[in-house]
Amino acid sequence: MADAARAAILPHFRMNDLAAENKLIDGFDPVTIADRAAELAMRDILAKERPYDGILGEEFGATQGSSGLTWVLDPIDGTRGFISGTPTWGVLIAVSDENGPIFGIVDQPYVGERFVGGLGVAQMVSRHGERQLTSRKNKSLKEAVLFTTFPEVGSAEERSSFERVAAEVKLTRYGMDCYAYALIACGQVDLVIEAGLNSYDIQAPIAVVEAAGGMVTDWSGDRAHEGGRVLAASNQRIHQAALELLQNA
Amino acid sequence: MADAARAAILPHFRMNDLAAENKLIDGFDPVTIADRAAELAMRDILAKERPYDGILGEEFGATQGSSGLTWVLDPIDGTRGFISGTPTWGVLIAVSDENGPIFGIVDQPYVGERFVGGLGVAQMVSRHGERQLTSRKNKSLKEAVLFTTFPEVGSAEERSSFERVAAEVKLTRYGMDCYAYALIACGQVDLVIEAGLNSYDIQAPIAVVEAAGGMVTDWSGDRAHEGGRVLAASNQRIHQAALELLQNA
Repeated sequence: MADAARAAILPHFRMNDLAAENKLIDGFDPVTIADRAAELAMRDILAKERPYDGILGEEFGATQGSSGLTWVLDPIDGTRGFISGTPTWGVLIAVSDENGPIFGIVDQPYVGERFVGGLGVAQMVSRHGERQLTSRKNKSLKEAVLFTTFPEVGSAEERSSFERVAAEVKLTRYGMDCYAYALIACGQVDLVIEAGLNSYDIQAPIAVVEAAGGMVTDWSGDRAHEGGRVLAASNQRIHQAALELLQNA
Repeated sequence: MADAARAAILPHFRMNDLAAENKLIDGFDPVTIADRAAELAMRDILAKERPYDGILGEEFGATQGSSGLTWVLDPIDGTRGFISGTPTWGVLIAVSDENGPIFGIVDQPYVGERFVGGLGVAQMVSRHGERQLTSRKNKSLKEAVLFTTFPEVGSAEERSSFERVAAEVKLTRYGMDCYAYALIACGQVDLVIEAGLNSYDIQAPIAVVEAAGGMVTDWSGDRAHEGGRVLAASNQRIHQAALELLQNA
């Protein structure tokens, strides 16, 4: 499915005549030809290979299944990055049961990187080789590198909460979308804090980060697979410290 | 030189034992083993091939020459991105005469992308093929995509100036360092506005953006090759509109 999504998307990346549409009337959420083509390509495979599984896709919504498993698909997470030409968007594929994701892939087609987590696997594959995914276990909050996608984060209150954490870390960076979660999994950064996510934005990152030994919850410390406010951390110590700051309104 | 820098840097990228040092006492400016090794590798080639040219390098300073040409080197632009594992830092190589850069390269070793501009060339080479660099000529400010590296931009006044422009564009994104200039050159984004740059941060981007048909000046509309406050745009119309907003304090 990730290979099929790559093939569907790459011909459209950095094409200057890309027919981006506005999905929301009052917001900026471009849906590209690539986004739809990739989800259709993945759904086509599922229809043949997993006809009894459900599907929840960003572009074409929910398809009921009977197996108890649901494929959660975001064909292009980070569409703003995509239309800006940055190589930091991703294809998100997860499969979940009633308790949340059991396996996930974060794929970056242009760079050619695939981050895989779950069912006993925690691996990155790229043109530079294969690598075991392991999050950083020995860092503290003051040594942490923190990512979020844009500095507003969400509401004014959500931004304030984020900034309480940002004030305590070594370095805060912006703009990576799903790629930031992959960077936790491969031991490069320590925290991703976001708000306003959908379930298809976060299920694959949860599977990859948890397989690498990291933690992902919402800002209350509960499970995050339904989306909303998300806190992902490379280890429990950093997770706990960030959680306390987020809750200390 | 760009090949030599790639070979020197890549073994150190995403190595978790990377010995980052703090170059500034009161700031955060890590210099890596890779940074120094890459500049030494490039200087070694220049010593053999261009012994009469000058060199200005980020790591090892200025070497006088007698030819009238100076090589301006930033072996890793975007060290914060580098230590965070993002694939958006770059190797910057420019050669300049008394009027500024005449040729430049922005190279991204991990992705395997090279953006080349000057002396009649405007080209990107990657594993996806070759591509002519051309900035977007038909966009207006309200349709523009704007990048800067971090939301503070610089001083409070510089941030206010930046935010006057950001309020008028379609989309503002953060965190790309030199890679954002390359995205102007390949027609993906329209504006990069930064402050506090050094000459080695901007000379190669100037050569690449100008070769693609874009414009780079300081915030007064003067030449920017000495660094400081930089405004890069995909076309003159957007450049002029952004310049007026930056100056309208």
